[in-house]
Amino acid sequence: MQENVRVAEWGPRVNLAGLPEHFKGANVTPRTVTPGGIDNLALHSTDVFTIPGKGEFTLDFRGYFRVARSQPTSHDWTTFDVTVNITDLRLFSQHKDIGNVSVSLNPNILSAGQIFHANASQGNAKCRIATAVVFDMPQLGARVFNKEPILLMNENVKSIPPVDDPNGHALLFMLPLFDEKNPSGQALAYLTSLHYGADNYISEAEVKALRERKL
Amino acid sequence: MQENVRVAEWGPRVNLAGLPEHFKGANVTPRTVTPGGIDNLALHSTDVFTIPGKGEFTLDFRGYFRVARSQPTSHDWTTFDVTVNITDLRLFSQHKDIGNVSVSLNPNILSAGQIFHANASQGNAKCRIATAVVFDMPQLGARVFNKEPILLMNENVKSIPPVDDPNGHALLFMLPLFDEKNPSGQALAYLTSLHYGADNYISEAEVKALRERKL
Repeated sequence: MQENVRVAEWGPRVNLAGLPEHFKGANVTPRTVTPGGIDNLALHSTDVFTIPGKGEFTLDFRGYFRVARSQPTSHDWTTFDVTVNITDLRLFSQHKDIGNVSVSLNPNILSAGQIFHANASQGNAKCRIATAVVFDMPQLGARVFNKEPILLMNENVKSIPPVDDPNGHALLFMLPLFDEKNPSGQALAYLTSLHYGADNYISEAEVKALRERKL
Repeated sequence: MQENVRVAEWGPRVNLAGLPEHFKGANVTPRTVTPGGIDNLALHSTDVFTIPGKGEFTLDFRGYFRVARSQPTSHDWTTFDVTVNITDLRLFSQHKDIGNVSVSLNPNILSAGQIFHANASQGNAKCRIATAVVFDMPQLGARVFNKEPILLMNENVKSIPPVDDPNGHALLFMLPLFDEKNPSGQALAYLTSLHYGADNYISEAEVKALRERKL
């Protein structure tokens, strides 16, 4: 794996210059096209992994993600399009059989997507973000990453950002996870299901603590 | 877009050395783990595109793909795993409003996946191939490509290869297609649905004709 070199971009890059950064206390107005910004949101997910030779494992993660949103193409809720990039992500879990597992953003790939309203005649907006992460599984001695996006989706977005919204899921089928130490080899594990929810804004101190946390 | 440089591999590479190549007349035995090889198969698909500002278009494609299969990990139909790469793909369509459209493999990304049996207690094998292509739409003046895989899937594979099998589909949600001339820009089109079928083996002469065909 190339270190510190982006080998892929899964969508357009959001220009971060001039975007205000939002933390705990920021307001969110339903069905309103929000100006561009950077959101620091609590995040939880439940992931199911199949590890050949070891079995199936369901893990509950908690942490945060930092999402940059471009200026919208329109201020009309029924036609807008916003480009998004995930610029940080930290999740932590503990499992009785496989120990501590943490998730971080893969620095080699730009995680990108969009929040948009595709159909003015239907009620809610949609979100899709092609996401590249590394799962650190120290008890198994492995750090595994996805070469195909984990497509985080929400087909029922009622605000920008979609806070306190448990409806996220990933569109995937036996997504292979590869060993960072042997990236061209066979998959070490598969991600078979992922459901997530974006929670509300967190404080700058909470972000700092999550970024400094190891396991 | 970097020319002639692979910027991504969406799965392990199949070593082509020594693999026999199969054309029209090759036999396929149901529920049997076939030794590694390279298949030249007719292919058809029905793709739905949304092009912002122009509308939604459904196109029927016909052509072929060339798929390399690794040696299997096991000869047991209920536990085998085979790595696959698409090494060529040519599809052609004509649409009354948007004219001739052709599809070719994106040379910058390795299209990769697997045929496998994940659950010995269930009947059929499964196939998933993360596929990177270029859609050439000359009447629209655009060549568009996918940065996220078109995940070709078949959850009901009865033979290797799955010939005369119309059950393929792509797992996708509003997959963005980007302009080759402006690859970092916004998506020009979206692939919203794809159903495909692998047909039977074709002859070497038919492969040659499809490779030489332009539109």
